[in-house]
Order: sequence, then C-alpha cells, then structure tokens
Amino acid sequence: MDEQQAREGIPPNARRVFKGVIFEVWQWDQKVFDGTTQVFEKIWRPSTVEIIATVGDKILIEEQDQPDRPNNINFPSGRVENENNILGEAKRELLEETGYQSDDWFLSFEHGRWGKIIQHVYYFIARNCTKIKEPQLDAGEKIQTKLITLDELIMLADEPRFWVAKEFINHLVHLQYDSKKKEEFKKLLFPK
Amino acid sequence: MDEQQAREGIPPNARRVFKGVIFEVWQWDQKVFDGTTQVFEKIWRPSTVEIIATVGDKILIEEQDQPDRPNNINFPSGRVENENNILGEAKRELLEETGYQSDDWFLSFEHGRWGKIIQHVYYFIARNCTKIKEPQLDAGEKIQTKLITLDELIMLADEPRFWVAKEFINHLVHLQYDSKKKEEFKKLLFPK
Repeated sequence: MDEQQAREGIPPNARRVFKGVIFEVWQWDQKVFDGTTQVFEKIWRPSTVEIIATVGDKILIEEQDQPDRPNNINFPSGRVENENNILGEAKRELLEETGYQSDDWFLSFEHGRWGKIIQHVYYFIARNCTKIKEPQLDAGEKIQTKLITLDELIMLADEPRFWVAKEFINHLVHLQYDSKKKEEFKKLLFPK
Repeated sequence: MDEQQAREGIPPNARRVFKGVIFEVWQWDQKVFDGTTQVFEKIWRPSTVEIIATVGDKILIEEQDQPDRPNNINFPSGRVENENNILGEAKRELLEETGYQSDDWFLSFEHGRWGKIIQHVYYFIARNCTKIKEPQLDAGEKIQTKLITLDELIMLADEPRFWVAKEFINHLVHLQYDSKKKEEFKKLLFPK
C-alpha cells in the first residue's frame, strides 16, 4: 500500500483499520516472545512543525484558545499537510498564524513521538523575522502573539500550559541553571 | 451513551467512531469561532499507572524490550484495566512486572495528557518494597528490573530512552541543580 510507505514507524505488514479527520489507526499481527501472535495497534498522526521565531532580541510566542481547549501557550506551530515539504509548511504556518516571515531558517531538532502514537515533530528556528501582513486564522483558532525575552521563555518550562515536547522542556530547565548552555542558545537565536 | 460518561475530556455530544484493541476514536460537531461547525476528533486511550518503587535506599527501574520497540527504560507501569480501582491496578502491575510489593502506597501526581490524545497518567510512590515472588510477564514483554540510586534516577532525565512525562522530566532536571528540592524528594522516597 502506497500511503503505508510514508508512515515511518508503522510495520510493512500493518493494515489501516480506521482513517479519521486527523488520526489513522493501524493494526498488524505481531509475533511476541513466546512465539504466539497478538494484534498490535498504533495511531498515526500527521507531522507537526514548531517554530522558534525571533524578532529583534525577542521570541515570538502564542497565547491560544481553541473551541474545545482554552488558554494554551505555544510556539507558532501546525499540522503538516505536505510531508514532502516540511520547511515550506513551517513558513506557511508562521505567516498564517502571525504574519511574520524570515529569510533565515534552519531545522533545530526533531523527534518521533512516543511508542504507540507515531508523530514526527520538527523544531525550526526562524531568525530575524519581520511582520509583512496580518495573521489569517482558521475559524478554529484564536491566537494572540506576544514577544518575550529569552529569560521569560526559559521560565515557561515550569508552566503546565506551555505546550512543547519533553525534550524541549529538558533543554529549557537546564538553561535555568547552566549559564554556559544559555549563552550558547542565545547565540543560536540572536547571532551578532 | 454509558461508556462516554467515563471518558473525561470527551464532550457529551461526541460519538465513538472506532474502537480498537487499545485506542478509541471519538468525533463531534464543534461550533468554531465564526459560528460554523467543524468535525473535531480525539483519541481516547486507557489510563496508565507509573510506579516509583523504593527498595532499601534504591529505586526500582525497568529495562524493557517490546516486540516492536526494543531498549526502553521506564518505571514499572501499565495500562489500567479497571478505571474504578487505580491503586489496585498499580499494585497488580508492580507485582506482575517485578515480583515486588509494598504496604506504603500514595498517589504522587497525576496528569491528563495532551490536547487531542486523552489519557490519564497516575504516578504512585510505593515505599519500602520487598520481593515476594518471581515476575509474571506477558508474552509481549521482556523486562529486566534494576535498582538504581536517586542520583542515577535524576540523571536519567537526560536519557531519551527514559519513558516518562514532560512534567516528571522537568522535576528531575530541577533536582540536578537544586539541592534543597532534591533533599525534599529524597525524604519523600526514603523517610526515616
């Protein structure tokens, strides 16, 4: 099956047993350690891009309400519609949600999330952004953008409403204590 | 629908559109901010218990292979089969996976995980455990238990193979630097 090829983390013998608006459910017969077979199951969800965007000496953050989920804090981010053009999707999400654009992008880190939930998340850094238009929000989004300092970002690691991966939380908590690592991250975000 | 009542985080007007071996998919018509309606979708998965078990002055940790996912590090943990008896499920999981039991249990913290994936995770502390039998593993599990020190646990926060929530990673990284917080956690795990 063609689509299955694109589902990294789903075994080749799996079959898709459900396809919803966002999620897919895949099952397969898995040989287990005593030689018998069990039905294993995983969820596939589309990749996500997260954008750490800098404006001057600040970082762009969103305070977001969704109809069923108020009051989150997150980076500009979104579901990828075209898995073959991840950077393009990141640029599109940043522009739509905030109206900002940058000519200086790079992939900072990525992770494949969690055992039974297959989802790739790509963290981009977009430096020296400028606002070129007003945001164009979906009817399912209410987003306020805010510019915060690096110190404020670092403290967001302790805020439960801040919506990022455990790998990034780990990074930020280290920066609360380790001034050398903090200086390195600062140079990455704001090169002279 | 009766079962829907037990699915905290799923709106009352949602319908279950798929039920798999582990996962359920729920959908509902959600009014969005411009007054129109969209189909929203969430995944429900059974609650999980995680057990921080102490033996003498050590902490019990598992190195685990699963047929489709080798080489993880985690606390004794498992899917809840009876949502009405979470503590009982935690005791059962600890005993089955490690052969250890304790008479000194308490719920340390819990969290509801992530926007579109509904899953409750309960972290229990089980102090002063003793081994009373051999583990009884499922055919889908290969588990080696290990006893580690608190300092070793704290450093596991930086190990990508260590499988815990971002809230717990945050806690452990703080303990790498904050000796007062570390002393408090030590007293919680190993009271005199």
